[in-house]
Amino acid sequence: MTTSTALDYLTAARELADRFREDAAERDKEGGTPKLQRDWIRESGLLKLLIPGEYGGYGGQWSDVLGVVREFARTDAALAHVYGYHFLCLIAPHLAGTEEQKRYFYEVTAANDYFWGNSSNPLQKTIIGEKSEDGVIVNGSKGFSSGSPDSDLLAISWNDSVTGDYYEGIIPSGREGVEIIDDWDNMGQRQTGSGTVKFHNVRVKPHEILETPYAGQTVFSTLVPQLSQSILASIFIGSAAGALEEAKAYTLEHARPWYTSGLERASEEPSTLSRYGEWWADYQAALGLVEKSDRLLDAAWAKEEALGEVERGELAVLVAAANVQAGKMALEVTSRIFEVMGARATASKFGFDRFWRNVRTHTLHNPAEFKLRNVGNWYLTGTAPVPGFYS
Amino acid sequence: MTTSTALDYLTAARELADRFREDAAERDKEGGTPKLQRDWIRESGLLKLLIPGEYGGYGGQWSDVLGVVREFARTDAALAHVYGYHFLCLIAPHLAGTEEQKRYFYEVTAANDYFWGNSSNPLQKTIIGEKSEDGVIVNGSKGFSSGSPDSDLLAISWNDSVTGDYYEGIIPSGREGVEIIDDWDNMGQRQTGSGTVKFHNVRVKPHEILETPYAGQTVFSTLVPQLSQSILASIFIGSAAGALEEAKAYTLEHARPWYTSGLERASEEPSTLSRYGEWWADYQAALGLVEKSDRLLDAAWAKEEALGEVERGELAVLVAAANVQAGKMALEVTSRIFEVMGARATASKFGFDRFWRNVRTHTLHNPAEFKLRNVGNWYLTGTAPVPGFYS
Amino acid sequence: MTTSTALDYLTAARELADRFREDAAERDKEGGTPKLQRDWIRESGLLKLLIPGEYGGYGGQWSDVLGVVREFARTDAALAHVYGYHFLCLIAPHLAGTEEQKRYFYEVTAANDYFWGNSSNPLQKTIIGEKSEDGVIVNGSKGFSSGSPDSDLLAISWNDSVTGDYYEGIIPSGREGVEIIDDWDNMGQRQTGSGTVKFHNVRVKPHEILETPYAGQTVFSTLVPQLSQSILASIFIGSAAGALEEAKAYTLEHARPWYTSGLERASEEPSTLSRYGEWWADYQAALGLVEKSDRLLDAAWAKEEALGEVERGELAVLVAAANVQAGKMALEVTSRIFEVMGARATASKFGFDRFWRNVRTHTLHNPAEFKLRNVGNWYLTGTAPVPGFYS
Amino acid sequence: MTTSTALDYLTAARELADRFREDAAERDKEGGTPKLQRDWIRESGLLKLLIPGEYGGYGGQWSDVLGVVREFARTDAALAHVYGYHFLCLIAPHLAGTEEQKRYFYEVTAANDYFWGNSSNPLQKTIIGEKSEDGVIVNGSKGFSSGSPDSDLLAISWNDSVTGDYYEGIIPSGREGVEIIDDWDNMGQRQTGSGTVKFHNVRVKPHEILETPYAGQTVFSTLVPQLSQSILASIFIGSAAGALEEAKAYTLEHARPWYTSGLERASEEPSTLSRYGEWWADYQAALGLVEKSDRLLDAAWAKEEALGEVERGELAVLVAAANVQAGKMALEVTSRIFEVMGARATASKFGFDRFWRNVRTHTLHNPAEFKLRNVGNWYLTGTAPVPGFYS
Repeated sequence: MTTSTALDYLTAARELADRFREDAAERDKEGGTPKLQRDWIRESGLLKLLIPGEYGGYGGQWSDVLGVVREFARTDAALAHVYGYHFLCLIAPHLAGTEEQKRYFYEVTAANDYFWGNSSNPLQKTIIGEKSEDGVIVNGSKGFSSGSPDSDLLAISWNDSVTGDYYEGIIPSGREGVEIIDDWDNMGQRQTGSGTVKFHNVRVKPHEILETPYAGQTVFSTLVPQLSQSILASIFIGSAAGALEEAKAYTLEHARPWYTSGLERASEEPSTLSRYGEWWADYQAALGLVEKSDRLLDAAWAKEEALGEVERGELAVLVAAANVQAGKMALEVTSRIFEVMGARATASKFGFDRFWRNVRTHTLHNPAEFKLRNVGNWYLTGTAPVPGFYS
Repeated sequence: MTTSTALDYLTAARELADRFREDAAERDKEGGTPKLQRDWIRESGLLKLLIPGEYGGYGGQWSDVLGVVREFARTDAALAHVYGYHFLCLIAPHLAGTEEQKRYFYEVTAANDYFWGNSSNPLQKTIIGEKSEDGVIVNGSKGFSSGSPDSDLLAISWNDSVTGDYYEGIIPSGREGVEIIDDWDNMGQRQTGSGTVKFHNVRVKPHEILETPYAGQTVFSTLVPQLSQSILASIFIGSAAGALEEAKAYTLEHARPWYTSGLERASEEPSTLSRYGEWWADYQAALGLVEKSDRLLDAAWAKEEALGEVERGELAVLVAAANVQAGKMALEVTSRIFEVMGARATASKFGFDRFWRNVRTHTLHNPAEFKLRNVGNWYLTGTAPVPGFYS
Repeated sequence: MTTSTALDYLTAARELADRFREDAAERDKEGGTPKLQRDWIRESGLLKLLIPGEYGGYGGQWSDVLGVVREFARTDAALAHVYGYHFLCLIAPHLAGTEEQKRYFYEVTAANDYFWGNSSNPLQKTIIGEKSEDGVIVNGSKGFSSGSPDSDLLAISWNDSVTGDYYEGIIPSGREGVEIIDDWDNMGQRQTGSGTVKFHNVRVKPHEILETPYAGQTVFSTLVPQLSQSILASIFIGSAAGALEEAKAYTLEHARPWYTSGLERASEEPSTLSRYGEWWADYQAALGLVEKSDRLLDAAWAKEEALGEVERGELAVLVAAANVQAGKMALEVTSRIFEVMGARATASKFGFDRFWRNVRTHTLHNPAEFKLRNVGNWYLTGTAPVPGFYS
Repeated sequence: MTTSTALDYLTAARELADRFREDAAERDKEGGTPKLQRDWIRESGLLKLLIPGEYGGYGGQWSDVLGVVREFARTDAALAHVYGYHFLCLIAPHLAGTEEQKRYFYEVTAANDYFWGNSSNPLQKTIIGEKSEDGVIVNGSKGFSSGSPDSDLLAISWNDSVTGDYYEGIIPSGREGVEIIDDWDNMGQRQTGSGTVKFHNVRVKPHEILETPYAGQTVFSTLVPQLSQSILASIFIGSAAGALEEAKAYTLEHARPWYTSGLERASEEPSTLSRYGEWWADYQAALGLVEKSDRLLDAAWAKEEALGEVERGELAVLVAAANVQAGKMALEVTSRIFEVMGARATASKFGFDRFWRNVRTHTLHNPAEFKLRNVGNWYLTGTAPVPGFYS
């Protein structure tokens, strides 16, 4: 993708984000599925941003995708999430499938602006697959299926009924027997549809089954945790940016100087200025680390099968550090912005608490404590994190 | 009040708090007025806790009231708020009325377990009173009228249409022309009913008008900010205590050890233990400061008209410091508890985010920054805070 | 001790502290043994503060001793340390000796204003005692022997050459074969003389050997870690108080407003005021927790042999929390005071960095992390810390 | 400078830093002038790193200089300081002199590996210059003259005795009447020689007087505060890196696991790992911001007279944010490393406290508070910092 194209996509993302913003606070209260906004994303073409040009996509890099995630998250962290996770699912055939599967799923997605949903989770062994003459029949249910409602394709996983082996596959979300339940009702990331999917004798066809399951044969195929942590890091960054922007607008338009301060405008209050300064510096530092991590991710992605363990280790450490740093900064900023706005900024109509609720919810995805231990262990002893579901 | 009685009231408060807890998360979502729970408080007799025995009350001290506020806030910070503010309104005649008014309002409250609401705010000049033959006719409207819905008596204030002078009065909430609008819809303290009250030609009778308005003639009459800040400090303390209790129960019952930790129980995780240790130490330190501040408040209150400026200054500094410290600790604890519970603890049904939302909302009541400057100025130069609406 | 007497001792301590202050910065640079100041302490009678009246002491409580420790630490944390540890050694016979030993050592100390030093440490098995006809002959060496230089009596410990059992004893510091080496040269607590003591065939007489060694038969005899942690907590509190006092004096006398601030005096700078306010609030909160912990220690001490495990557990938790909280606050305050003084306050002649160096050094005595885990474990599971050398 | 050359200089700097490390702790105690080490720097050629190739220098960029500063600061923040300030002085003719002066001072420095010292400070009006027939005669004295001892050339400033106008000039440090007093004795940055220089009828020749004094006619000439803040930011970064390295080596070689932990090595302690992880992430985030700021500085420097006000404003904001962020991180890291090393790491022989003392001293150079207000004001209102002595 040329630089000018990249800018176009950022522009497109920014425009979408501005449209998300119009009713983001209301939609956050409602929860459920933002069908209209998801369709805007489909129409924008941004769902094929990462797909190589040869398959009909725009040939962007992961850093381009993550830039879009940050733009979306400024106004709607839930849409940023499902957008980022769309790619996390979409690249499963690239990481762990055949050349043909990779081509097929890239092409069909690019041609139709398909939106992928996620119902795959290696830690929960709640779906069982039974081998049949022609593929596999799966039964069971999964929680935390982000982006499954209103999805076109669904990344799923199961354990074999006989061997217990772990498999991944991709099916049309409308496949018979798939019941997508919109039961996600949590304090944050409320429109991500991260609820339950039930599988009633769902057939998975042979070409929909990935050859090498995740945690796999090549170093390249173990990059999922780094992709996932990078997506989350950018959601945190975007959430903080959005919180700062809302606070800025509110401080300039609505906030009043404290009645004993003798100032005319809230924006002249010295403590307000230094707080903004502090948050901006924190934000920029975290953003810089995330951008550095994104660049390393691009390089690792470009290596594909040539990616080595040492490079993967360094990437895993930098991504983990960037993720934790971004989350810490975003928690602080989204909680503290109220100090420069004042009591009236807590009105429900503004929905300013959603920034903190989103970040607080999402930073629990996998514990910062264990990511930090991995980073520390690497710094101290040079030992790379063991590739796994979350590291 | 004897010690044993004090314990009885704490027991009563604790039992009520446990009953509040049953649907606190649901009621927080609904907002509006917790009529049932307010009636339980009426029935408990706790509304007369501070009223001296000679007027039919239980003769408790402010520290007793604040102990009850902390108990309530463990499970329902909104009820803690309206309970605390009940007394803030109730003592207006004591601070700024005649001996007869003080007696009348104490007695009528004790006899009927009246619940007071607040619609008085000296910073907003949005209610105008016109002197009539027999009292005053007030018109206008006020926001932030905490506890006004379902109240029996209402503390109001107005500016005189001719002189602009500031007056306070107390009227039955059902007085003709009083329109209490349940329009409080904010991110926290959602069942405090802190919405708008409109006054349409509302008559205030002579005996309902306080002789000496607030910010008044005696040092004693300037204690309102210290009472208000003390109530809030105890709400913060109780909110943090409640958050810790919920987290503890969740960690013991639901939380799972991280899958790479090799531990059997989440409660064995060393980082979880040290986090609880850190929060408990922070909590105890803030609680200790609040209790010390409460004792000084009791002493100041007991002095009544004999209270001097120096004592008031020292009280104002200690109360402000305790308020800020409690708020800071509570913000930290209520935001961080999720780290020891994990992602599933964000489910809406638990409503664990309400602790942070309540504290975040309420700590904005008046800015910590300006309270800290007062404290610092006193430490540095020995200058006491200027008595005012918030200091 | 009557309240008025308590005040006298605090006054005496305050006067001594003011005299310590005169050359505290110089003495900190020199290190070594502050013989002159130690003699002032001897002369003041404060070394018998804790000794019951029946033995010729002043009958103070531990909270009185700790109050003196805080006063000393305001200007000289090293003298506060050796003063506090004097009592930690002095009560060894009370905790673990016979009634006669307790009486003897209390009386001889009270009569002569003896200063005790410490050369006992159960974790280092570097001194071996060989039973002889008349007592024990010890050989070996110990580090971290705080207060050993210029001491009159020395608390020592050894492991039996045959059984390996742990013993404690008390000997005159001048006993033949005792070599006290003034080799403590660390970044903080520089005049505590916490160096090496060597034992060359040192004879310990039967009446100098404690019957029941530490970690002993009664709950009461296991209180050493709580005493030690309480002494350190008060050193942290006093160090922070001293740092704040020096900063205050400097801000008022020497600091200049920043040249773009438009202010006339540094003490008018709003950010300086809010910083002082923040530190004062933090300080008061930590102090309150330490005072609460001190009161519980007094109660436990008064129970002597009647002290139960549950009470000991609650004390251990509160003391640990207070110690950690005080250390955390003191580290923050002693590092940040420079922000309100400015670059010129870093001149060596002021020696203001010694507050941070002292606290930083001393907070490492035993790790906060493990104390916090004990506190958290108790909060979470109700399990009391296992009595040990540091818990 | 080609990339490979840049690497050579970094290698040279790293080697020098390793040699500085050998007695850095001892030299820190001594204070005074590290003549030997300064000569090593002279011999290395690194003093001409920034000088364009046409004048005999190596044609490096500011980011190259700052990279060297970071390397030096890992082991010796004082040498990093005088090295960085060498360039701050050296470019004075470039910013504010004639083309001929620029050429002359660049060439003479490159040819002789001259080390520049600083005795110029626009806020102190303590040097008066009297115009003479042939130049100016200056009298007076200045403090904070970093790098003046053992310097070859000295950047000075004065106010005209008649007009009060501010002037800058460069003289040989050995010029008659110049008395360089090695009286810098502060708690940190102890070998920077930031003491007093006295001027007794010192003659400044016409060609040594800069045409346009600082704060001058072009935007380019106002870059001094950005250069100075960038140098300090890199000293903070390097100090933190050095502290982490020392801590790492100590943890691996000397630290012991806590006796109750059941671990064999200190480097297995989970809380130690997560602390290192946290610090590394903080360090990387601050470093990233500093590197971004350095790149913007390179771009601004390259524009010379074409530099516009808007660009200068953005640079000033980014540099200030990076400086504050680096300082904050370095203060935290240098104070906390002791937690993962333990009590024995406080021995004077290690000198580990010097990292904190250096950073604490140097972060006071100009207050973070006012830099943050500038950053915040720019974020909030778009107003660039007013170019001045420190912004």
